[in-house]
Amino acid sequence: MKALRFEDGALGVADVPVPDRHDEAIVRVTLAGICSTDLQITRGYAGFNGTLGHEFVGVVERSPDRGQIGRRVVGEINAGCGACELCREGDPRHCARRTVLGIHERDGAFAEYVSLPPGNLLAVPDELSDRQAVFVEPLAAACEILDQVSINDTHRVAVIGDGKLGQLIARVLATTGCELKMIGKHVNNLRLASDAGIRTVLAEDGRVDAGARCDFVVEASGAASGLQLAVDLARPRGTIILKSTFHGAVPFETWRIVVDELTVIGSRCGRFTRAIELLRSGDVDVKPLIAGEYPLESGVAAMTAASQPGTLKVLLKP
Amino acid sequence: MKALRFEDGALGVADVPVPDRHDEAIVRVTLAGICSTDLQITRGYAGFNGTLGHEFVGVVERSPDRGQIGRRVVGEINAGCGACELCREGDPRHCARRTVLGIHERDGAFAEYVSLPPGNLLAVPDELSDRQAVFVEPLAAACEILDQVSINDTHRVAVIGDGKLGQLIARVLATTGCELKMIGKHVNNLRLASDAGIRTVLAEDGRVDAGARCDFVVEASGAASGLQLAVDLARPRGTIILKSTFHGAVPFETWRIVVDELTVIGSRCGRFTRAIELLRSGDVDVKPLIAGEYPLESGVAAMTAASQPGTLKVLLKP
Repeated sequence: MKALRFEDGALGVADVPVPDRHDEAIVRVTLAGICSTDLQITRGYAGFNGTLGHEFVGVVERSPDRGQIGRRVVGEINAGCGACELCREGDPRHCARRTVLGIHERDGAFAEYVSLPPGNLLAVPDELSDRQAVFVEPLAAACEILDQVSINDTHRVAVIGDGKLGQLIARVLATTGCELKMIGKHVNNLRLASDAGIRTVLAEDGRVDAGARCDFVVEASGAASGLQLAVDLARPRGTIILKSTFHGAVPFETWRIVVDELTVIGSRCGRFTRAIELLRSGDVDVKPLIAGEYPLESGVAAMTAASQPGTLKVLLKP
Repeated sequence: MKALRFEDGALGVADVPVPDRHDEAIVRVTLAGICSTDLQITRGYAGFNGTLGHEFVGVVERSPDRGQIGRRVVGEINAGCGACELCREGDPRHCARRTVLGIHERDGAFAEYVSLPPGNLLAVPDELSDRQAVFVEPLAAACEILDQVSINDTHRVAVIGDGKLGQLIARVLATTGCELKMIGKHVNNLRLASDAGIRTVLAEDGRVDAGARCDFVVEASGAASGLQLAVDLARPRGTIILKSTFHGAVPFETWRIVVDELTVIGSRCGRFTRAIELLRSGDVDVKPLIAGEYPLESGVAAMTAASQPGTLKVLLKP
């Protein structure tokens, strides 16, 4: 089968065997999405070698759980060891021995077929199109924020970043009724957020006049400068939620966190059920966020397109 | 009067006028303590020019609140504007227009007299000696942690740093019954902690074998490398409490916070009442933490002594 792989520093479409682990489900991928993490991996993040991709929707072809066969599914990307304390407590997302789809020791979904433990798969309701369902994974990551902090209509909240993830996060946070603004650099992306009823602030030359300091600031810019801006925007004793993962270290003045007694919370993957519900209810409309769709064979061109500043979701069709 | 001042990059004892703000209390300082923040200021932290010092005990000579006159007091170091939302809510510690004793736009306590708003002063119980009372301010900063997070006897906790603040923090956290260890580089300081019943781990060549990862890690090393070590020691979804303030930026891999979904909390000044209670009850014995006492005239030598690695509390007597 064809797969878009990153190996020994090179990105390319290769012919590889179809996965055949008999303890796992084999899913025929019908649509996949490119995430900034995929781009970061090609810059060295996570030291990953293998098939990229962790956002997908597909149809189960084979599974030890025979009831899954023929079902349209999305997949939780963390596969825990199943034995450790965290796994037994139902949190394989933080298992120290976990593999992560297309990120850590597990081939990903930019391929004709992908393999995952049956327990990682969740059926997609018929009402959702593939083009909606492919957003379940990143939308769940956006929803994770609301599992970590309580945001309501008394709070001032800023989202830094108008890209793929920032757009989803803003739409999720808007459902809380908070006083929300998105800060970004791309006029077209900010317009999309405006169309969804979200206040926007254009950051010009790195300067931001964002008004009163915020109770919560979500850093989803994917830029090294984002954390410093988040510190500038947060009120004393405010909370910063870090979403961006990027390769390498950034210089940071930690005393700012101490003096303002800020709380900084790292936020990664979320549970899929709330994301599916937001898509089904129409509370989050992801269609305007699709920048383009490429056949898997053109995966390298798709990654190049996705890496252009301000580009929203690029899809891959096997 | 004599005062130890940092001005235009130079540290020295100078003759300056006795403070005489009639809206404030004038306190005759009987003993003061050198904090790492004082040392950091001489390296450029906070951009402060003026009389150093924010840990002190003294006797009120004059005050608009006449009941204070003649009382032995310690002083909360943040003086808020009194008018803003935070001040009105009782939190002048985060007032944007606050002055801070010996740190920000307010002459400090390494002087014969110091001036503070009457509301900043708290009477010292007779049972406490000056040598205990001078620890109220830094001990309150240690207590602040327990106002920010709930630590109990089910938690594994590490304190990074065996210096002045790390010693106080470990003693405060020990009162919770948590499984505690102090990680440090100075054998003598670790021995002091051991004597107080605290488990210690010697960090050799930057390597630490600290066993199982911790629910809470307090970074009080004052070293740029401390935050990275804290991230290594925290369990997934664990909490890091940042105490060190130092000048400048440190390189930091923020993705570690995201992937492990860590919480990082900045922690600064605390309320004095709990600190006074810990000293009075004998739960925290600060006497072994005194490294030496210098006359104010020898303030420069005292600062040099305090800046030697591993030196504990150096006191100044006006």
